[in-house]
Parts: sequence; structure tokens; C-alpha cells
Amino acid sequence: MSKPFEVRRARDVARWSNEADVVVVGLGCAGASAALEAGSAGADVVVVERGSAGGGTSAMSGGVIYLGGGTPIQKQCGFDDTPEEMFKYLMASCGQHRDEVKIRAFSEDSVAHYHWLVAQGVPFKPVFYPHYSGEPPTDDGLVFSGSENAYPYKDIARPAARGHVPQIPGKAGGLLMEKLIASLERTSARILTDMRCETLVVGEDGAVAGVVLKHFGEETTVRARKGVILTAGGFILNRDMVAVHAPDLARCQFLVGSDGDDGAGILMGMGAGGLAINMSMGSISLPIIPPKKVQFGVMINAQGQRFVNEDSYYGRLGEYVMYRQEGRAWLVLDEKCFERPEVPREIVAVGESTAEIESALKLPAGSFAATVELYNRHAERGEDPLFHKSREWLAPLEPPFAALDCCVDTSFYASFTLGGLRTTIDGEVMTPEGGIVPGLYAAGRTSAGLAAPGYSSGISLGDGSYFGRRAGRRAAR
Amino acid sequence: MSKPFEVRRARDVARWSNEADVVVVGLGCAGASAALEAGSAGADVVVVERGSAGGGTSAMSGGVIYLGGGTPIQKQCGFDDTPEEMFKYLMASCGQHRDEVKIRAFSEDSVAHYHWLVAQGVPFKPVFYPHYSGEPPTDDGLVFSGSENAYPYKDIARPAARGHVPQIPGKAGGLLMEKLIASLERTSARILTDMRCETLVVGEDGAVAGVVLKHFGEETTVRARKGVILTAGGFILNRDMVAVHAPDLARCQFLVGSDGDDGAGILMGMGAGGLAINMSMGSISLPIIPPKKVQFGVMINAQGQRFVNEDSYYGRLGEYVMYRQEGRAWLVLDEKCFERPEVPREIVAVGESTAEIESALKLPAGSFAATVELYNRHAERGEDPLFHKSREWLAPLEPPFAALDCCVDTSFYASFTLGGLRTTIDGEVMTPEGGIVPGLYAAGRTSAGLAAPGYSSGISLGDGSYFGRRAGRRAAR
Repeated sequence: MSKPFEVRRARDVARWSNEADVVVVGLGCAGASAALEAGSAGADVVVVERGSAGGGTSAMSGGVIYLGGGTPIQKQCGFDDTPEEMFKYLMASCGQHRDEVKIRAFSEDSVAHYHWLVAQGVPFKPVFYPHYSGEPPTDDGLVFSGSENAYPYKDIARPAARGHVPQIPGKAGGLLMEKLIASLERTSARILTDMRCETLVVGEDGAVAGVVLKHFGEETTVRARKGVILTAGGFILNRDMVAVHAPDLARCQFLVGSDGDDGAGILMGMGAGGLAINMSMGSISLPIIPPKKVQFGVMINAQGQRFVNEDSYYGRLGEYVMYRQEGRAWLVLDEKCFERPEVPREIVAVGESTAEIESALKLPAGSFAATVELYNRHAERGEDPLFHKSREWLAPLEPPFAALDCCVDTSFYASFTLGGLRTTIDGEVMTPEGGIVPGLYAAGRTSAGLAAPGYSSGISLGDGSYFGRRAGRRAAR
Repeated sequence: MSKPFEVRRARDVARWSNEADVVVVGLGCAGASAALEAGSAGADVVVVERGSAGGGTSAMSGGVIYLGGGTPIQKQCGFDDTPEEMFKYLMASCGQHRDEVKIRAFSEDSVAHYHWLVAQGVPFKPVFYPHYSGEPPTDDGLVFSGSENAYPYKDIARPAARGHVPQIPGKAGGLLMEKLIASLERTSARILTDMRCETLVVGEDGAVAGVVLKHFGEETTVRARKGVILTAGGFILNRDMVAVHAPDLARCQFLVGSDGDDGAGILMGMGAGGLAINMSMGSISLPIIPPKKVQFGVMINAQGQRFVNEDSYYGRLGEYVMYRQEGRAWLVLDEKCFERPEVPREIVAVGESTAEIESALKLPAGSFAATVELYNRHAERGEDPLFHKSREWLAPLEPPFAALDCCVDTSFYASFTLGGLRTTIDGEVMTPEGGIVPGLYAAGRTSAGLAAPGYSSGISLGDGSYFGRRAGRRAAR
């Protein structure tokens, strides 16, 4: 079995098969961005990709890229955004482990980053898609992809849609990667496919000097004169790593990843002396919309209590159920707001009264009744002082009721890892003591992301492409 | 500054100052246990301790040791415990990241481990102290030190008191360490004090070969023929490491640690190729008892809702407030159950009605009223179907009310880290790929503990001493 953590000593490499200034490991969104930018900075670049073609998990994704601060698309769609508002939203939503310095740079440079993506050929249609979701079924270019419009964020930062989606109906991630790879192919970068990176080569001084590769069973090497950039995905598909670091995530039905998300990039970085952080954290999605009208319902826990504003983004809903409610919750609707969600959810209770719902869901007697009574009393006045759901989704609930299953172990949840190598703002891999591993860089899900936890869709492609570029520039120096 | 992560290469050690079969780094509970057992197995042992005397954080602690399965003390106090019941409780309470194999061994060997402690001279008085707490003010030998008597654990495993406390009024941790060190001094082990371990020495084969020490500014070395055991504490007093790995813990007023808890042991292990896990986790204590009568009250969140059974152990209460309630909670009492807790807590609201409490605590109108109404309706029948508080603490609450501050940022919380090096059941330090770092062992808070999260008092001294012994035995092989 491959042991990416066990680095190869440079003195044990008899002869390098190949060499370059910068070697990029993995051709997803972060890798393509890193390679493009390293090339622009004058570096001779080699990209190694384990698949027969690039794209990775980025290509399989919905293609939403978190951008803002006043992009042309935002302006044309009527959103008044600034870097400061974007910064405030991300600081508030990205959880206790957020990285302020990175969030600042990501927000301030976001408009420029948008223009860079467009310059690579990525098209965005200046039309807002109002039914927020990770993947609009249309070719519209802008969606809400977080909790910007929901309490408490709407009071902290002026809400703006920031999910930018390449112009194609359906899987925009594929188009994004097609364009980035096409742009890369116009450069002098060499793309070596079917090349699995086995491990890093480290010199006597501790600096990363190159990579060991396997190409159809045959070992080969590439020397990196300036640096190696690890953009090889996360570890959601490495069962052992998930069991050790993030066992909660394995409970989700849908693990979002491709073959590359086996943790090898993170293990290689650790083997060279890098620190991995936020390893227990992941994006945990509980999609209940579309249709948006189900947000008129109440989400309750096993005590019959509400615990979150139901108009929160599904990344927030999933985290709340998983971590705060032991993984158990139901969305209770009445006739006004009942509609089958697009992601199927089983109806696990129907009742002509609150008592029938309590009985069907085995809730404590009177608990759901008390919740509805208090909720309705405030909803009649258009208020939700407990969780501050937006007025537009507030109306008293009347029997009959139906409850949709939102439990982690029995209904649809999606997850991927957010932990990875700790990096500086320029992608340099850091040691446990806050130093730098010379010659080693990381971006995308091989690195610890902006959000941990507190995920809004598009942050992964957003931070992957942006910090991938920064890593490329720094490595090319 | 010292850089424990940067290991010394064996070829750079010109001459070893000293040598031994087994070198133990740190003379707390885990270190003393490791040294004693390595010596018993025939090894020539050196213990290096940074302080002028041993003891470490163990000596400062309340001295509660989690033991069970039917110890003589448990039997004499009338508790019918078995290894299986202890195993079931720990599996249920130690959280999602628990280590089943270790919990099994810890439970099955617990009676034998008790006898070993007694054989080292540690005295336990066979008297049960009924007011459970980490530190009985008496010299009684047994306390409840977890949530054994509380839902859901009481239905999962037959409740038994398992907090074993050395016989001395007050700080029993001091007595524990006095006895263990005295026992160690009767062996041939050499104890070198005022010796700060700077880093590990690693051979060409990756095996740990010894340690680099500083003794009043002068560097010295000890070669370890068989192995080095890291028992150097956790990292709660390393501000940078806490900020990176476990920022929530820094919010607690009282950080439980001594100088040694600076993370150096963990960093050394990582530098030699070890994996640190559960690094975001810690024990988070919210002491509300004694007196126990305050458990008649209700703990509420910022929505005026209950969220936990109030008779849970304070390690559980603290975690629930920190992670599930954004760090905000209050304990509301009525005249029947009002008494000042031993750990002072500010009275932040008093009121003649639920509405006055809502107003004073800025809770949503009607929210606390609804909580009390539902609580009282069930409490009248001796029931708590929401959170299953024990019948003995259930009675309807009547105005006037008083609310005690239990918020993380404004009231007393205590914390220490539970993350550390991943080890096998015999203390061998593991790599990120599940292999072993040859010659390196860890125990106590330098290693990842049994509980993560889900802490019951006594687990730290319990797993430190037990797995310290196993590491000593294995290293001496």
C-alpha cells in the first residue's frame, strides 16, 4: 500500500526523471489556479494528476464560487456589496476556528479574483436565480449560497448574493474546470495525467525537493526547483482517516468526493512536517429547499422544541442538527406550506393535532403543542423573538400537520471534510510550531479552509481558486 | 525559543551524556506510573522532570481517579459494579471520538489497577462522600464524579460511584503524587529534576533514540536504549496552540494546568512523526453543585428553553452550554431550592413572575413562561419527559425566581485539553497512517485521552496512570 506520509529522502533519489520550478499535485480548481498563476509569474510548471483528465471533485461539484465585494455580476443583478460587508459576513458565519487574515484578503481581492476567472474564460450570466441553492437548474450566474439573508447574519452584514455560477444549466463545476484547464493548456505548463503522487522528496535541510510518482505501476520522479503545491483534495473518502478524525461525517448518506479525496495530500504534507488542523470539521448539509415555502414550517428536535431559524442555509441547519441535537430533527409543515422538497424527505408523521404529531414522533406530551402555541402567538404579529426567522416565512401553523424526516441517520445529508494542512496566507505549509516547511505549499481541501465549521456553498471553490493562485505566485518567486 | 518539534538527528549528537533503557519525560501521574512499571519489568529507567520536584498538574488536582468494576472501596461502600457496567458507562459518555479498545481494557483492568495503586502506598478510605464533586472536603475515598446517576447513562449502565480519592482532606492529588514518587524513589530509577526536555533525538531509521535536555541553561543528552515515554502534560497553557486548535477553551476563566502544560510533549511527538488527534477538545466544567438542591432549578438558554437535565455532571453541563447554546445559559431557582453555590455565581435576575425573569434576562416574551408551564405540568407527576432529570430533583417551580449566571464569558468555567498524540493501547505513538513511531510512547495528557469530549472527573488521572503503566511495560520489553 502507498504510504504518502513516509517521505523519500533526496539522497535516495538516484536520478530525477523530470524537473520543473513548481510541481502542482492535483488538477482540480485549486491546482489549476496555482499552476496558471505560477506560470504567469514566469515559473516552469509541471502539474501531476492521478486521473486520466483533470477536474477532480471540483468538476463534479455544482460549480458555485463564493465571490463578492461588488462584482460586475452582483451589480448587474442589483446587489450592493462591498469587501467590508463580505468580510463581516464571513467572519460571523465561518465559526470559531475562522482565519481572520485570510478572510480579509479573500474579501478584499474578490472582485479582482472574479475578473481573473473571467479572463481564464469562465462565463457568468448576469442573472440572479432567486431560489437559492448550490446548483441552479438554469444557467443563471448568481445565487444566495449561504445564510446572508438569515438572522443573525442579516443584521451583521448587508445581505448580498455571492454564489457565482458558471453559465451552463446543471453541473457548472464541469464547465469551470473545462475553462480553467483549457486556459492552462494554452500556457507552457506540462500536464502529466495518470500520475499518482506517492510521496514527497525531502532534502537534508528539511526542504521539499520534489515528488515521487507512479505512472501505470512505474515509479518516476520530478524535481521541484522552487516548490511543490499540494492541491490533492480532502479526506472524506479515506474511511480510516474519517474514523479517527471526523467520525460524525461518516454518518451522512452522501459523502461528496472523488477518488482524490483519500487524504494522501494531507498525509504527504504531514510527513514533511506540516500541521493539519480542524480535522474533525466538515460541511454538513441538510437540504430542505427548494421549494422555499417549506420555510414557513418549524424544525423541531426530540424535545419538540425549535432550535434554529428555519430560513438558515442548509450548511447551518445540518451542523445544528448533527452537533446540537444529537442528529435528530423534523420539519413540521401545515397545509399552507406543504410541498415535497426537491431532495426527497420521508413524511414520518401526519396528524390532525399537535398531540397526534407528538404521539407519532414520540415527543413528550404537550411539548410540540407548547412550541406551536408560542410560535403562533409571535408569528401572528410577524415576529420570531426566539430564532428570528424572517418575517416573510412567518405565519401561524394550523392543523393538520405533516412532519418530514431530517434525522442524520435516516435522511439525506451531504458532507465533505474542511480540515487540512495549516497554511499561511500565501499557501506555505506551516509546522506545529508556526514555522514554515520550506518548498511546500497547499490549497483547496488539502489545506484547512476558510470555514470551520460554518460552511456557505462556494467557499470551497472560492478559497481553493483564490489561495491556489496565491500559492502559485509565492512558489514561483 | 525552544523548538520541541524540531528533532535532533542522532548523528548530530557527538556524545551521549547519560543513558538508560527507558527515558520518561515528565513526573506527573502518568510519568511516575510509567517509570514504576518499566522498572518492575527490569528496565534501567531515567525520569527527567522540568520542575525542582515531581508532581506536575496531577499534584495540583483534586486527586480523583476514575476506577471501578468492583473495587474493594466500591464494595465496602455498597456499590455493585462490574467491568461491563463501567465499560457501558464510558462508551456512552465519552463522546463520538471515544476509543473502544482502550475503554475495554481500562474497565477490565480497573480493579487490578486499584490494587497496584494501593501497593504503591496510595491510601483510600472506604467511605462514600454523597455530595458528588471533584474534590471532597473530607478524606472520604469514593465520590460520584460523572453523570452515572443521570439520564441517559443511568438507563444504559447500572450507576456506581467510581471517583476514587486518596485519603486526605482537601487536595488529594498532592498525596497521590507524594506516594507514587516515594514508591519510585525506592526503585533504582534515576530522577533528574530541573531538567527541561528540549526535543527528541531520532536515528536514521526514524526510531527515537533519546532526548536533548537543558539543565540550568546547559545542554545534556540521555540515550534511550529501548524507548522514550512522553508524559509531559497537555497544552492548555500554550496560548498559540490553544488559539489554533481549541479556541473555545480559552474562553473559560480557569485554565487547569501547570508550567508543563505548554504542549512541548505533543510537539516533540509530532516532530518525530506522531499524529495528534482530538486537538479541538477539552474538559469544560460548569460547577453548579454543591449544594445539590439547586438541581431542583431549571437551566435555560437565551430562548428561555431548557436544554439538558440539570442533574448532569458539570463536565456535561459545560460542554452543552459551550457547544450547543453559544455559551449562554442561566440556572433559575425558586425559594425552595435557592442556595448560594459553593463556586460563586452571580445572581443576574430576580423576579416575582416568569415575565420579570424574561424581561431581566432579555428572553423572548412568554418563552420562560412556556418552559415553566410545561416543566411544572410534568414535574407535578414526578416526570421530566423532555430531559429526564431524576425524580428526586423534580418539583414545580413557583415564583419568586432567581437566575444564576452560567454564561461562559462571564461566569466560572474550568478547562483543560483532551487532545494529544494518538497511541496504541500500549502507549506506542502512532503515525498519521496508523503505523508506529519506533521507540516512542506517550501517556497522560500528552496523549489523546479516553474521553473526547464527554469528560467525567478522574478519567485524566485514571487513564494517565493506567496507560502510563502499559507504556512503561511495553517500552521495557
